[in-house]
Amino acid sequence: METSLAVTDTSTAAQPHLSTADAALIPTETPGIAVANRSFDAIVAALRSALLTLTAPQQPVSVAVPPVIARALLERVGYVDGFPNLLGTVHSFAGSPARWHELQLARDEQNAPWHTAQQITDVAVLPATCYHLYPLFEGKDLTEPVVVTAEAYCYRNEGTHEHGRLRSFRMREFVRIGVADEVTEWRDAWVSRAERWLGDLGLDVSVVPASDPFFGGAGRLMGATQREQQLKWELTAPVGDGAVQAVASANYHKDHFGTPFSIRIGGETAHTACAAFGLERITLALLAAHGPDPASWPARVRATLAVDPR
Amino acid sequence: METSLAVTDTSTAAQPHLSTADAALIPTETPGIAVANRSFDAIVAALRSALLTLTAPQQPVSVAVPPVIARALLERVGYVDGFPNLLGTVHSFAGSPARWHELQLARDEQNAPWHTAQQITDVAVLPATCYHLYPLFEGKDLTEPVVVTAEAYCYRNEGTHEHGRLRSFRMREFVRIGVADEVTEWRDAWVSRAERWLGDLGLDVSVVPASDPFFGGAGRLMGATQREQQLKWELTAPVGDGAVQAVASANYHKDHFGTPFSIRIGGETAHTACAAFGLERITLALLAAHGPDPASWPARVRATLAVDPR
Repeated sequence: METSLAVTDTSTAAQPHLSTADAALIPTETPGIAVANRSFDAIVAALRSALLTLTAPQQPVSVAVPPVIARALLERVGYVDGFPNLLGTVHSFAGSPARWHELQLARDEQNAPWHTAQQITDVAVLPATCYHLYPLFEGKDLTEPVVVTAEAYCYRNEGTHEHGRLRSFRMREFVRIGVADEVTEWRDAWVSRAERWLGDLGLDVSVVPASDPFFGGAGRLMGATQREQQLKWELTAPVGDGAVQAVASANYHKDHFGTPFSIRIGGETAHTACAAFGLERITLALLAAHGPDPASWPARVRATLAVDPR
Repeated sequence: METSLAVTDTSTAAQPHLSTADAALIPTETPGIAVANRSFDAIVAALRSALLTLTAPQQPVSVAVPPVIARALLERVGYVDGFPNLLGTVHSFAGSPARWHELQLARDEQNAPWHTAQQITDVAVLPATCYHLYPLFEGKDLTEPVVVTAEAYCYRNEGTHEHGRLRSFRMREFVRIGVADEVTEWRDAWVSRAERWLGDLGLDVSVVPASDPFFGGAGRLMGATQREQQLKWELTAPVGDGAVQAVASANYHKDHFGTPFSIRIGGETAHTACAAFGLERITLALLAAHGPDPASWPARVRATLAVDPR
C-alpha cells in the first residue's frame, strides 16, 4: 500500500523550479516574500552550520526564537521611533466569530473593508533576532561575559523591492554581553572574522561604516585603527542584478540594551555587541558569484561550506 | 586573542534555564510567545528529522517558507471568514520617518497612541504552513500526485493562555495533491502512521474527529471504516498541567485548494490532504510523559528520536 502511494521524480516535472539542483528563491504574489527551494535551503543550512562551527570556541548559549515579539519591548528600546516605516505590528479581531459576521454584514452594505474591526495586538513581527536575547538576561548580574546565539525569520516592511531586499528573511545573530572594552574587541574581531570568512566563500566583500537612527554613528570612511569608535559596520557584497547589499553587520550598542533590561556584569551596567548574518543575502551573493548549482562551485567554496544540496 | 575571549560554562550560572540539560520553553513578557532553550530545540530537531525519515519513501518535495504570507491569499481561500479572531494581519506606517515624527508630535499633545497612523499591509502572519505550498502548483496540470513538505512558525492569536497553547509555534506539514480517492487513502494512512509513531514515542494518543469552520465536517465519533467520510482528524495527547491537546492532525480538503489555485491532475481539479505536526506540542507531550531530561527517557523513545540534547 505504501509503495503504491510513492511519488516519483517525474511528478514534479511540471514544477522544475522545485526539484532542480539549481538553488532558487521562488517569488510569491507578494513582493519581498519568497519560498526557498530545497537546494537554496541546503545552502542556508550549510551557512548556519559553518557559522556555528566558526563560533564554537566561544561556546555560545543557543536558543530558538519565534518570528514575533512583544510590541512593548520594541517600544521600550526605541525601535518604533527609529524605524516606524519598517516595523510591522500584528492586528487581530478581538470578538467572537458571531460578532465578526454581524460586522461583516454591516460592512458589506457599506462596501467597507473587512479589517476595520481589527485592533492592534501586543505582538509585532520580529525586526531583528537579537531582541529576543536581551530579556533572557533581564535583571541579571553576570560574573563573566556571555555569548548568545539564535536565528529567526525577521520582518521589515521594505518600501523598495530591489533584488535581495526581502521583507521576510533569516538572520543568524551572535550577541556578546560584557563590559565596553571587551565587547568592542569582540565586535572588531567579528568584523575581521566575517570579512575573512566571506572572502573564503569567494565573495567580493567590503567593510563599510554604517549609521543607524537607532544608535547614531558616523557614516564616513576611516582606518582600521579607528574601527572601535564606529558603532556599526556592514559587510557588503554583490547579490546579483547589479545590487550590492549588506550581507552581515557587526554593531556595538554601548548600554542601549544593558540599561533598559537592567543587565549588569560585576555590578556595572552591561554593554553589548552583535554580529548578524543575513542568510538569504549571503546565499544570493554566492549564487551571483559562483552560479546557481552548488555542485559546480569552486572547490574552496564547497570545502568552506560543505553544501549537500540533495 | 581568540582564547582570551572564550566564554566558560560558569558564565551562564545566573541563567540555569539556558544551559540546563532539562528541556524548557522560556516564557517572554507576552503570553503564548516563548523561547526554546537548546535542549528543547534539540527535541524539536529530532522530531523534524524523524518525520522526514518517516516520509522519505514518499519522496516529498521540500521547501522552506517564511512566517508571513499574502493577505490576499488568506482572503481568497476563506481563512478570514473562518478564523477572524485567530488571524493576525501586519500593519505598518507607509510614510517617511520625518512625517512619522510630525504625527508623533501631534499625537503626543492629544495623548493618542502612536499606532493610529498605521495602515494594513499586504501580508499576514502565517496561520498554517501549507498555505505557502498550494501557490507553488498554481495553474499546473499534474501528471501524477505529489507530496510537498515544509515547516514554518505559524501564528494564531489565541485568546486563552492554557499550557501548550502557544500563539507562535512550529508546524511541519506534508501535503498530498492528487485525486479524491488516493488523497483520502493517503490521509487515512497518515492517521494510522501518526498514531503508531506517537505511540512509539510513549504518548497516550487518541484519534478524534474534529470539525472546522473552514471545511465543515461532523464532530461525532465513528468507527475506523467510516474514517474516509470525516474531513478532519486530530491526534491528541496530554501536554502537561492536566491539558490534553491536538498534537497533530490529518485533513482532507476536497477541492478547497485545488479550485482557487486552479491545480489540476490529468485535466481534473485536484483534491488535497495534509498531515500537520505541532512540534512544540509534541515536545511538551514528551516532557509531560517522560520528564524534562531527554537523557533519562525510556530507551525506546530515545531510539525513535535519537535526540542529541547537547
